[in-house]
Amino acid sequence: MKLFTSVNDVSDVQQLVAEALQLKQNPFAHKHLGENKTLCLVFLNPSLRTRISTQKAGQNLGMNVIVLNIDKEGWALELQDGVIMNGTTVEHIREAAGVMGEYSDIIGVRSFPGLKNREEDYSEMIFNKFVEFCKVPVVSLESATRHPLQSLADLVTIEELKTNDRPKVVLTWAPHIKPLPQAVPNSFAEWMCKGDVDFVIAQPAGYELSKEFTNGATITHNQDEAIKDADFIYVKNWSAYEPYGKILPGNEDWMLTLDKLKEAPTAKVMHCLPVRRDLELSSEILDSDRSVVIHEAGNRVWAAQAVLKQMLEAL
Amino acid sequence: MKLFTSVNDVSDVQQLVAEALQLKQNPFAHKHLGENKTLCLVFLNPSLRTRISTQKAGQNLGMNVIVLNIDKEGWALELQDGVIMNGTTVEHIREAAGVMGEYSDIIGVRSFPGLKNREEDYSEMIFNKFVEFCKVPVVSLESATRHPLQSLADLVTIEELKTNDRPKVVLTWAPHIKPLPQAVPNSFAEWMCKGDVDFVIAQPAGYELSKEFTNGATITHNQDEAIKDADFIYVKNWSAYEPYGKILPGNEDWMLTLDKLKEAPTAKVMHCLPVRRDLELSSEILDSDRSVVIHEAGNRVWAAQAVLKQMLEAL
Amino acid sequence: MKLFTSVNDVSDVQQLVAEALQLKQNPFAHKHLGENKTLCLVFLNPSLRTRISTQKAGQNLGMNVIVLNIDKEGWALELQDGVIMNGTTVEHIREAAGVMGEYSDIIGVRSFPGLKNREEDYSEMIFNKFVEFCKVPVVSLESATRHPLQSLADLVTIEELKTNDRPKVVLTWAPHIKPLPQAVPNSFAEWMCKGDVDFVIAQPAGYELSKEFTNGATITHNQDEAIKDADFIYVKNWSAYEPYGKILPGNEDWMLTLDKLKEAPTAKVMHCLPVRRDLELSSEILDSDRSVVIHEAGNRVWAAQAVLKQMLEAL
Repeated sequence: MKLFTSVNDVSDVQQLVAEALQLKQNPFAHKHLGENKTLCLVFLNPSLRTRISTQKAGQNLGMNVIVLNIDKEGWALELQDGVIMNGTTVEHIREAAGVMGEYSDIIGVRSFPGLKNREEDYSEMIFNKFVEFCKVPVVSLESATRHPLQSLADLVTIEELKTNDRPKVVLTWAPHIKPLPQAVPNSFAEWMCKGDVDFVIAQPAGYELSKEFTNGATITHNQDEAIKDADFIYVKNWSAYEPYGKILPGNEDWMLTLDKLKEAPTAKVMHCLPVRRDLELSSEILDSDRSVVIHEAGNRVWAAQAVLKQMLEAL
Repeated sequence: MKLFTSVNDVSDVQQLVAEALQLKQNPFAHKHLGENKTLCLVFLNPSLRTRISTQKAGQNLGMNVIVLNIDKEGWALELQDGVIMNGTTVEHIREAAGVMGEYSDIIGVRSFPGLKNREEDYSEMIFNKFVEFCKVPVVSLESATRHPLQSLADLVTIEELKTNDRPKVVLTWAPHIKPLPQAVPNSFAEWMCKGDVDFVIAQPAGYELSKEFTNGATITHNQDEAIKDADFIYVKNWSAYEPYGKILPGNEDWMLTLDKLKEAPTAKVMHCLPVRRDLELSSEILDSDRSVVIHEAGNRVWAAQAVLKQMLEAL
Repeated sequence: MKLFTSVNDVSDVQQLVAEALQLKQNPFAHKHLGENKTLCLVFLNPSLRTRISTQKAGQNLGMNVIVLNIDKEGWALELQDGVIMNGTTVEHIREAAGVMGEYSDIIGVRSFPGLKNREEDYSEMIFNKFVEFCKVPVVSLESATRHPLQSLADLVTIEELKTNDRPKVVLTWAPHIKPLPQAVPNSFAEWMCKGDVDFVIAQPAGYELSKEFTNGATITHNQDEAIKDADFIYVKNWSAYEPYGKILPGNEDWMLTLDKLKEAPTAKVMHCLPVRRDLELSSEILDSDRSVVIHEAGNRVWAAQAVLKQMLEAL
């Protein structure tokens, strides 16, 4: 693998999931693979799970891992071509990415969307420029429109915990006070559509995701109906795709509660975290054995390690 | 050892001190012990000595060490239960600690007190919640009321440099311009009370520490009398326990000077650092061979390594 | 080597360059050398290339590398002696450097000039105090007046890419909107004056560098004449030495363009980066095969590794 940003970069999704679960059983079996290899993790935005789990995944494979919070330790990058750089940006992404490529065997990059300009965000300008100019394999640590390491960990979690061959998986929108990216739901949707699951998206009217990610999903505005008999319920807020980056009024009653789980008596509740308690998802669920969110976050290590392993093998 | 936050977590203080001094002689003798183990150091507040010495201690034991300045690289944590998270906190400590536990064999946490609400600080809410929710062994990197790695290093330093069997150790309050926590003096006091030393606390009236830490100490308001014939003088400012977190007017003459050391001709001067020169402690002492503050800071490595070694052995 | 801040710290410049090029061929041949050794990289200012390349160089030699952004993760340091520390500085450089020396086998320090007080900057107060008080070997990661790891990498690049025995190397001033230090041009000049090159400095009147760095260089105000038949053109802005730290009006036409390279048909263009595109140097050059700036940045690893190797050998 040379690039990991979307499910389409994976030749065999089931095999990658299986590999992650094997690594979970035997984390240090491939420690020679990353010896003398450098993984550079570049963050343009904050991170907790992605940072630690990917750093650990690289170390499990024997890599040297270098973390750079370029937004704090470095300086502002210029992203546009053809501008005279007499303003506040100190270095062009062409040079910054090119130089990091010189120092790295594999690079991970996190770059959130601005949520102002949909075309710009959905063109994945920052991530794609990084890929173009650094000239080494790149793994997305969440880009403007996708969070593939999260989605792979989600699929690993479902594979690990499912009790029937084709589980019903429901992605349900949740309320929030801030406009959040569509990256996690986009990515979750495109991975579920490739997985061996019955996939339903429940959301209030107006929160439709871009169709390029939801092809094959059942989409409904009826949360109760969606939840019925679900095996896994994935809770997540996102802002509107149209009008882009906006929060639509109302819909506070979409918060998932124990009461709503009555019609899904064995459903496990997932969330990518961080989660706003009692706004997106009730504390009573999070503190019960219905929630698998901590376990799911733990699987981030094996998802990252499976991807890094395939990238190391292809170097 | 599963937890290291207080002297009460140590089954045999003398043995731990001896182990630290052995590690100082042979730092890499146990490098296999931490192989494939992850130490996560989480800072909610700034750090210099604790950060570097603990990272080095973990590396000396062969551990992978991951440092997260969560206050800068992450986001604000919610500490209270039962609140609707529609404000500025992004993630609850239940999830944040739980997730970090998934990624770590041992966690170190630093969290300073707010100095506004004594009950809250002295309940060690943040540290204790971290311990509760992360579910792996935790070492305190300084909490609201204690700084045990510092105190262990202090006891190691005294053991190493003492010239008689039962040295006289004096903790003397020093002036400062900012209200500082009681963590270092609390901790130093409880460790000295368990050590084989003659322990005296000298402080202006009104700066009494909580009695739970000073049981066994001689307490005096007379600095000159306390210093007389001391073998070790530990200089440290702290704010009042009652009224909590306040600086009382006056007492500038408590700054330790060479002149005050006349009646303690062989006393070594200690300080946990950072020290405000010529406010807490005179430059003439710090720049003389009376001061052992740099040597003492160096011993932070062996204190941390002894604790981590015992934790690794108990995994 | 015990200290690396200037070309004068190097006993044999050609041999150091040769060593860097050997390490480039065989990066991991000396991995035993740094085993159980700690390299502490202390940044008082932001960094991208220096941070990553030096961290990688240390890791290539088997060292444990600890990075501390003391300006962000720590606190403000007091630099002056004899002051009562009742202001905003939390720790004196005497203690901070002394303590870091306890934890390190080798220390790297970055500290930019204030550009307000020339005598203070040119006395290298911060860097020299760090060296004095830490008591272990120190490598400059750029100080107030020099950037020696950059200059060594530059010389390595020239040695690697030159097509004749004594190449013509031109340092040409470039426009900028902010007053920048003289560290890179000072350092480049003193290294080139020791190299086997024909060295010319082209700059507008008023931008003369301090003579201590330019002894042996040809200095001209005529950029076109300087560039003629050059083999390497090093583009860099700097602020005036006199009046210190100022930008003089005009000189925008000093930006290097492809057109200006007509009289130097085989010249390679260098820059230490970060570069302001179309202000210092035209995009058309940076995006052409005339530019070697990414390659040059890549060589920072081997420069740092050669220096660290010599320091480790002298421990």
